Amino acid sequence: MSSRSARALVLEQPRRLAERNLALPSIGDDDALLRVEACGLCGTDHEEYTGEMHPGYAFVPGHETVGVLEEIGSSASERWGVQAGDRIAVEVFQRCGECPPCRRGDYRECERHGLADMYGFVPVETPPGLWGGYAEYQYLGPDALVLPVPDGIDPVLATMFNPIGAGIRWGITLPGTKAGNTVAVLGPGVRGLSAVAAAKEAGAGFVMVTGRGERDASRLEAARAMGADLVIDVERQDAVRVLVEATGHRADVVLDVTARAPDAVAQAIGLARTGGTVVLAGTRGPEHPAKIWPDAIVQKELRILGALGVDTAAYRAAFDLLASRRYPFAELSRTVANLDEAEYLVQTMAGETDDTPPVHGVLVP
Amino acid sequence: MSSRSARALVLEQPRRLAERNLALPSIGDDDALLRVEACGLCGTDHEEYTGEMHPGYAFVPGHETVGVLEEIGSSASERWGVQAGDRIAVEVFQRCGECPPCRRGDYRECERHGLADMYGFVPVETPPGLWGGYAEYQYLGPDALVLPVPDGIDPVLATMFNPIGAGIRWGITLPGTKAGNTVAVLGPGVRGLSAVAAAKEAGAGFVMVTGRGERDASRLEAARAMGADLVIDVERQDAVRVLVEATGHRADVVLDVTARAPDAVAQAIGLARTGGTVVLAGTRGPEHPAKIWPDAIVQKELRILGALGVDTAAYRAAFDLLASRRYPFAELSRTVANLDEAEYLVQTMAGETDDTPPVHGVLVP
Amino acid sequence: MSSRSARALVLEQPRRLAERNLALPSIGDDDALLRVEACGLCGTDHEEYTGEMHPGYAFVPGHETVGVLEEIGSSASERWGVQAGDRIAVEVFQRCGECPPCRRGDYRECERHGLADMYGFVPVETPPGLWGGYAEYQYLGPDALVLPVPDGIDPVLATMFNPIGAGIRWGITLPGTKAGNTVAVLGPGVRGLSAVAAAKEAGAGFVMVTGRGERDASRLEAARAMGADLVIDVERQDAVRVLVEATGHRADVVLDVTARAPDAVAQAIGLARTGGTVVLAGTRGPEHPAKIWPDAIVQKELRILGALGVDTAAYRAAFDLLASRRYPFAELSRTVANLDEAEYLVQTMAGETDDTPPVHGVLVP
Amino acid sequence: MSSRSARALVLEQPRRLAERNLALPSIGDDDALLRVEACGLCGTDHEEYTGEMHPGYAFVPGHETVGVLEEIGSSASERWGVQAGDRIAVEVFQRCGECPPCRRGDYRECERHGLADMYGFVPVETPPGLWGGYAEYQYLGPDALVLPVPDGIDPVLATMFNPIGAGIRWGITLPGTKAGNTVAVLGPGVRGLSAVAAAKEAGAGFVMVTGRGERDASRLEAARAMGADLVIDVERQDAVRVLVEATGHRADVVLDVTARAPDAVAQAIGLARTGGTVVLAGTRGPEHPAKIWPDAIVQKELRILGALGVDTAAYRAAFDLLASRRYPFAELSRTVANLDEAEYLVQTMAGETDDTPPVHGVLVP
Repeated sequence: MSSRSARALVLEQPRRLAERNLALPSIGDDDALLRVEACGLCGTDHEEYTGEMHPGYAFVPGHETVGVLEEIGSSASERWGVQAGDRIAVEVFQRCGECPPCRRGDYRECERHGLADMYGFVPVETPPGLWGGYAEYQYLGPDALVLPVPDGIDPVLATMFNPIGAGIRWGITLPGTKAGNTVAVLGPGVRGLSAVAAAKEAGAGFVMVTGRGERDASRLEAARAMGADLVIDVERQDAVRVLVEATGHRADVVLDVTARAPDAVAQAIGLARTGGTVVLAGTRGPEHPAKIWPDAIVQKELRILGALGVDTAAYRAAFDLLASRRYPFAELSRTVANLDEAEYLVQTMAGETDDTPPVHGVLVP
Repeated sequence: MSSRSARALVLEQPRRLAERNLALPSIGDDDALLRVEACGLCGTDHEEYTGEMHPGYAFVPGHETVGVLEEIGSSASERWGVQAGDRIAVEVFQRCGECPPCRRGDYRECERHGLADMYGFVPVETPPGLWGGYAEYQYLGPDALVLPVPDGIDPVLATMFNPIGAGIRWGITLPGTKAGNTVAVLGPGVRGLSAVAAAKEAGAGFVMVTGRGERDASRLEAARAMGADLVIDVERQDAVRVLVEATGHRADVVLDVTARAPDAVAQAIGLARTGGTVVLAGTRGPEHPAKIWPDAIVQKELRILGALGVDTAAYRAAFDLLASRRYPFAELSRTVANLDEAEYLVQTMAGETDDTPPVHGVLVP
Repeated sequence: MSSRSARALVLEQPRRLAERNLALPSIGDDDALLRVEACGLCGTDHEEYTGEMHPGYAFVPGHETVGVLEEIGSSASERWGVQAGDRIAVEVFQRCGECPPCRRGDYRECERHGLADMYGFVPVETPPGLWGGYAEYQYLGPDALVLPVPDGIDPVLATMFNPIGAGIRWGITLPGTKAGNTVAVLGPGVRGLSAVAAAKEAGAGFVMVTGRGERDASRLEAARAMGADLVIDVERQDAVRVLVEATGHRADVVLDVTARAPDAVAQAIGLARTGGTVVLAGTRGPEHPAKIWPDAIVQKELRILGALGVDTAAYRAAFDLLASRRYPFAELSRTVANLDEAEYLVQTMAGETDDTPPVHGVLVP
Repeated sequence: MSSRSARALVLEQPRRLAERNLALPSIGDDDALLRVEACGLCGTDHEEYTGEMHPGYAFVPGHETVGVLEEIGSSASERWGVQAGDRIAVEVFQRCGECPPCRRGDYRECERHGLADMYGFVPVETPPGLWGGYAEYQYLGPDALVLPVPDGIDPVLATMFNPIGAGIRWGITLPGTKAGNTVAVLGPGVRGLSAVAAAKEAGAGFVMVTGRGERDASRLEAARAMGADLVIDVERQDAVRVLVEATGHRADVVLDVTARAPDAVAQAIGLARTGGTVVLAGTRGPEHPAKIWPDAIVQKELRILGALGVDTAAYRAAFDLLASRRYPFAELSRTVANLDEAEYLVQTMAGETDDTPPVHGVLVP
């Protein structure tokens, strides 16, 4: 198979996404080749594109990949529990499984791989180059982490494993959300909407979601469909007052997954009850500051947790939730683009075109 | 409907399970009536029957009920998010939702209900008497906690929500099991087998299961089918030595869900690594002691956690896992009995008849 | 004794601190009267005075009181373990000891007392009016919390129990500082300097302290005397760079106890290592915002904890640390004022007079 | 100094404690020589002596050493913050300070030293041999951890830093004991009595101590003197019933520091309230089992924590508590022996002579 090649998009520098043909690698006993069916896009994708978060070298982006195993070595097949022909998703991190951090479950700090070997961030110069989902094929090294996709979930919908996993970890696991809790989610993007479903699923007693203005109106409707008990347009309503009127108190858990709302952090702090927890998740770009009033953190003795990544348990729970079909993930506003259309979709999701950004963007190579 | 009645089994005293006809209650705006389709049995059922755990009054047992909503008040329907005709499961606890423990998520300590109002434990003298699943109908009061059953899951299989929920909470959530961890499960009963699936699903790196002798041979095969990497017959093998040979170390997390193995607690302690966690779950009957060597707890600075109950988040995750069909829960050895056969099934599960106890017993009224 | 009276200062409204004579109460079996020897001042005192934090009624301020028991009922004497003639300090909170929060140790949420009955904040109209330390005598109700002052500690120095207790709880207990950790303390006020001593005492491997400009030069010298390994003037030096140069890494624990430094929160976030903890403590006045870059919290998955109060264990540890004489608490810049001079001292500590604010201000009625 | 030698006791094999003369080492820039003034004895000492816990090689025992710095290198002096002539205590562990466990504060897992280099356990064949406190001099390598002894504390009393540190860590820090909690301490040995003082100091609302029979009568009196609210002779009284009668409930925190009481673990479990914490500390010898009823752990969802070691923060807090002279540590029953009498004292503390074992045994070389 080594004489064949794959079409791939390489982000050579900010705003230069060029197509290349990259040779397919030979697969041995302990690695695999994935035929990419779909690759979800998130904020990181357009931050890489615009240069807000660019590593300074050329690489194949795409870290939310779903596909079918084209070829897999027998050892990898046994270790991973999957076979050629299976539909799987790929985690962004790789894991050696042997070092102390891997042993204790902190595989994002893997001493062999760590941040340097994240899928969608590896230099195209590192053979075989196909280290991301913006391509027809993606290479899976021995330490790749694969997730089986449940039967009956089409590949485009399956890319939701990433935002739903984030909603579960950031909205439930990390803050320790319990049945009966009041949860406020700031930002009705794909992660926020996923967090609504995750919170309802965890038995949250009351879930509130905020959006901003006309552009978020349909997303707040989607939040309602996910089960939100209250949706608020922060341009027209005072979120704290409306929440307190509705429930008699503030939120036990607040999750801020807004993109660029400069006042969201202060609002998250305001919405939390005394002794409550605020999770800040998702990056906004390093140059975006927020104005807060520290006294509120002190007076309420809040716990504020930064949340960057997701983990295997959350991804698998995400697939289970998706497969349950209990929440309308399939009905979210979604745009699908092929390799030729990829750049325009990334620009649209960054708000740089005249098209309305969809809740979810997916690349189908 | 109040002129109709339901057949119910009442445990009048230990070993006296008598059928009665109980009048169906009128349903108002805020309660509901469930037509029972299936009720799972667990160790508590036979401990109640034999008298090891009997409250001293007559009651309708059954706390793992699945059924179809026959009638539901409009207010209950809105609050619970379900309608007449929906298939649901019922949690064992009730929750007022207003008291401080309910607000912070500890609804098992609900100040209005608490332990006294657990389904399957309420006196038959408390109207309307139908407080358990050993009956054609079960009454759902305003504070009942209902769980929607995913489409396509038949009622008998659906009763697995309870042991799978236990496997998730006891094997994963409570000990904080992480991807890559080594997990040892003692006891290949329905909860142990569920914990194997839960651990694999959470990304455990290695899962071991123990059983005892010939009687557990087929259960250990079931553990293999659930994904266990290693199964051990403790009558023939030294669990610690075999685990260390296989992995190079002891377990990060050990879950003991054995029924009556007097040496299981000591074995659980022995299997845990320095700094590891042991979860003891499931009751054995108050008169069953265990012999342990405290020095091992001290020397390894273990954390040992008693685990009694399960919660909404775990039950819902259990339904999702069940619906994923990724683990062979449907293939477990299972015996289904009707009301007339119930007593014999309970006796069989207690090991008091000549029949081999199934992994899972279900009552279908 | 009821015919006698005490001189007391009543803060009738912001910036109006008037002397009154208040009748001494009769003491029964379960309460006590304290002859005030000294009352420490903190930021709250000048925030009350200037009106930044004024409750809207007249009251006797002073919540860091040390004195000698003039009279005590026999029941109180037995319960508190102290006798007439003993030197004691008084905690700011009262505790019923019976309600659920008191039982679990969260006595600041006491259902009988809570925030409303804090010493130094009770209306003078509530008999007997003497609820604060700006007076010759302070009344101790049955639920007062008293701390024995070690022999040989003079009353003025003894008022340090409050800032040292804060340094222990905020710098050590709450963040879980361990031996070998690197700790950064922002702000060389009395609480910051106390936190330096607490951190060294807990075995911190490296302690850094920041101050701002010439006004803090002598306070940074005091930090050195307390054992700080590195002191930084943030006007001249980049705290992060200097810390990394000195230690090779960022801080495990950062404590921000600055008063009004608008960029301190951002600096605290910048100083923390990935996975580190930032404690924000001490109020700045509700109108003081801070500008932060949320991405840093997310990228480093920080834990930020608001810290308001202190507790018995920390106060007692503070007295022990004070009594050890291992840290130069007695040498701190300290101004002592009598009742006539109190207003000027409060103004000085608020930076409103030409005098340099001392590190520690103490009222001696 | 290298031509001089020190008298030392070497435990050549179980029950063979022989005197040797070991040459004093040359001290360089980064190490030190301690003139031993006193060395506290604990259960480990007699377990080593009797062979219950013997490493299989010859060594100088003694891991609770207090002495005066005879000679110290300039680099060590600066790093440790002490000088020749200072009285210090030595921690049992050594710490490199550079490896990941040391950096995060878990220096007992130091990758360079770990358990192999514990003071009092290093082979006498490892130069310079003087690795324990049963000698006139003890060698302090570059990674030794030294604790300054407060002025005015004589060396014999100063050896209490070890049991008091244990009482603080095991009774307070590890279980998270809070002000107002009810604490039960099982076993009135030196660690148990220290835990009573630590609990009172942390503001515990009620402290109970148990002992067994006539032999513990005077120790229970000592517990009273330390501040225990209730003492129980478990031979005559039912500890749970008496505690519940006295307080209305069971204990939030139970600390078991009994030596060889086979039923103490079950009693600890019985004394804990639902949701409570039990700390098991101190080893009993590996061949001593305990009989427990696991159902109680499950039903009450207890947390049981094994506790082996102590840390710098606890040792320093111990010295502060000792220096406060608020608890009668100096009045405890204490036997002091010289090198010639050491063996008899160790035998007495193991209960092998006709003499009554003192609460505290100290060797003064």
